[in-house]
Amino acid sequence: MMDIKHYMNDLGARARAASRAMAKADTAAKNRALSLIAAAIRRDAAALRAANELDLAAAKASGMEAAMLDRLTLSDKAIATMAEGLEQIVSLADPIGEISNMKYRPTGIQVGQMRVPLGVIGIIYEARPNVTVDAAGLCIKSGNATILRGGSEAIHCNQALAKLVKEGLAGAGLPADAVQIVETTDRAAVGELITMPQYVDVIVPRGGKGLIARLMQEATVPMIKHLDGICHVYIDDKADLQKALDVAFNAKCHRYGTCNTMETLLVAEGIAARVLPPLAKLYEAKQVELRCDSAAAVILADYPYLAQATEEDWSTEYLAPVLAVKVVADIDAAMAHINDYSSKHTEAIITEDYSRALRFLREVDSASVMVNASTRFADGFEYGLGAEIGISNDKLHARGPVGLEGLTSLKYVVFGHGEVRQ
Amino acid sequence: MMDIKHYMNDLGARARAASRAMAKADTAAKNRALSLIAAAIRRDAAALRAANELDLAAAKASGMEAAMLDRLTLSDKAIATMAEGLEQIVSLADPIGEISNMKYRPTGIQVGQMRVPLGVIGIIYEARPNVTVDAAGLCIKSGNATILRGGSEAIHCNQALAKLVKEGLAGAGLPADAVQIVETTDRAAVGELITMPQYVDVIVPRGGKGLIARLMQEATVPMIKHLDGICHVYIDDKADLQKALDVAFNAKCHRYGTCNTMETLLVAEGIAARVLPPLAKLYEAKQVELRCDSAAAVILADYPYLAQATEEDWSTEYLAPVLAVKVVADIDAAMAHINDYSSKHTEAIITEDYSRALRFLREVDSASVMVNASTRFADGFEYGLGAEIGISNDKLHARGPVGLEGLTSLKYVVFGHGEVRQ
Repeated sequence: MMDIKHYMNDLGARARAASRAMAKADTAAKNRALSLIAAAIRRDAAALRAANELDLAAAKASGMEAAMLDRLTLSDKAIATMAEGLEQIVSLADPIGEISNMKYRPTGIQVGQMRVPLGVIGIIYEARPNVTVDAAGLCIKSGNATILRGGSEAIHCNQALAKLVKEGLAGAGLPADAVQIVETTDRAAVGELITMPQYVDVIVPRGGKGLIARLMQEATVPMIKHLDGICHVYIDDKADLQKALDVAFNAKCHRYGTCNTMETLLVAEGIAARVLPPLAKLYEAKQVELRCDSAAAVILADYPYLAQATEEDWSTEYLAPVLAVKVVADIDAAMAHINDYSSKHTEAIITEDYSRALRFLREVDSASVMVNASTRFADGFEYGLGAEIGISNDKLHARGPVGLEGLTSLKYVVFGHGEVRQ
Repeated sequence: MMDIKHYMNDLGARARAASRAMAKADTAAKNRALSLIAAAIRRDAAALRAANELDLAAAKASGMEAAMLDRLTLSDKAIATMAEGLEQIVSLADPIGEISNMKYRPTGIQVGQMRVPLGVIGIIYEARPNVTVDAAGLCIKSGNATILRGGSEAIHCNQALAKLVKEGLAGAGLPADAVQIVETTDRAAVGELITMPQYVDVIVPRGGKGLIARLMQEATVPMIKHLDGICHVYIDDKADLQKALDVAFNAKCHRYGTCNTMETLLVAEGIAARVLPPLAKLYEAKQVELRCDSAAAVILADYPYLAQATEEDWSTEYLAPVLAVKVVADIDAAMAHINDYSSKHTEAIITEDYSRALRFLREVDSASVMVNASTRFADGFEYGLGAEIGISNDKLHARGPVGLEGLTSLKYVVFGHGEVRQ
């Protein structure tokens, strides 16, 4: 039997050592590694598919459900997308080493900040081979070492991908240990990974709420994470009706299973009778179930997929064609509801009123706050970060979509000329 | 007997409620509160001294040592300094609400970030009444609510100060619960404070290494902290001799008890014989004990306070007129030593060599890295932050001296015109 603790400590020590080399790696070397990995993935597409077939066969035999099988599958298109993703990361500016705000102080020293890698990033994710490559790419570009622990059902594919990543790193003169995958499927490995702060600086868990809640209980390493997305759209009585219809429909129906999908619609009572009926027409075409409070239920009495909302609905992430609907007195009541029930992910107001728009932006305490735009925009690519390692609902360090910058830190740098403290 | 858990939960719930009002408080109201508190402190100086006398009498009776008694004492000068400190915080720019980097995306939305308060800050500190006022001032200005748990020996004085703070908050129309002090001296209160993440967003512990190490074991709320400061100065063989002498003397002897004081001096072997003897002359006048490795000991054989360094010395924070001294081959050996033994607080290189200066800045993984300047500059005031709530040796969130900005977070804001995700 394998000694998991010893194995994980060895991975950690190797990662820590590699992180020092990665921190000083120049931009050209990091980009070269990424390009080499992309080329190797294209070259070995057939072998990757074969490794994936082994995983798929085992997963089917163990009765994996269709949605998970779909994410485990590495199609030709998925392989091409992985390679393209790496090339996109090549095109992003290198965040490392940037020096900002160098200011002279009255003492004569000049003080500013330099952006530096965090060190070692642990990533825990489900059986999705594309995450292996995306995460490795982001960590390489940001000068970090990483330990990847993907779902055990993807182990063959992940091993094949790790081999190509190491080949690319070596080809660029970078340490192969900069990207390591956990080669054991033993779950104890996760327990070790999240409790070795001496080797791991931050954990990015990607997966279901249950997994993340469990990790939060046990982790001693800080995490960049979100548990769920209970996102709200508030239609103010000063809303433009067409914008309200467009956004409220898109925020719910563009995709049901994503964390930035609207789960609760709040409507000002002054506009509810005008906006809810035409909006319900749009939802009806998609067979969206509307769980309404009593005021909304009166207006939508004839809606075919109507249900009565219960207290539980206000804090439920449906991830399905289901929407909670509540009529509120005004923006104050809307913000009070949001501050009570939101998971602090993303909220939007639809209004043409200047003062209310500014109040909503300032007073709603969520990672993303929007005026007249769909909550579905809360995404690293849509925000222009170029890539996304995850989304944080926490306030410390990174908040909202997390790109390369979230994998870095700022240290103070001081240029002196022999100055001493008086 | 008091139910500490219930009491602390009540403080937490009040703080959370007050934090919502503080987050939207305008700059004028926050500044007015700070000015009113400063005026009240000056007005009630005699009453504050009387409260302090009660604390001092009890502390003396229980045999408190002189250094702690000194910090507990609220002299007329200390009272004036507290009031002035608040007025300095008034003059700092309000960090809250600042919107930065608003950029249009190809979809038509405009995306940027807004600086917002963290929410509720818990501060745990020793029996130093001035920290009560400093910390309250910084939290008010940054739009946070705070729960202050000062050393129990200062309880009378802290209660008197808290009364004035609440008077100032009320006078400015802000909730009195924005600043609460823990009124019980029961130690269990600290245990509650650090384990109620539902009410407290971050803990700033200020105090000895023992206290902070203990809090780290038990806290479930994130902390902004540092354990110790094992700071290094490396004198390169391309150093300017005078700068080397000035900085190495100042970094050790300006103050012995501070976390940014140099504890280990590294000297390149190419310059050791030239720089160590004149430097030792300076240290000798201050009776600084030099714990030398064998190479340094040969050069300093005649030094009256010479000792042999042991392995333990390289990781000891003396906080005293004691210095570990090691001769190293070159900058690579110096950086390897620093990366192995440093507490990642502050390190300086003394060199006139351009490439080595840049390498040191980039490759040394500490919160502050300096060229040709004394480590004693690692300080919020010296860096121009205007004030300092603490120093962080961690990489996530705030690193190095932490001012108002460290008590804030950035949320994403999106200005739309009805855009939906395609």
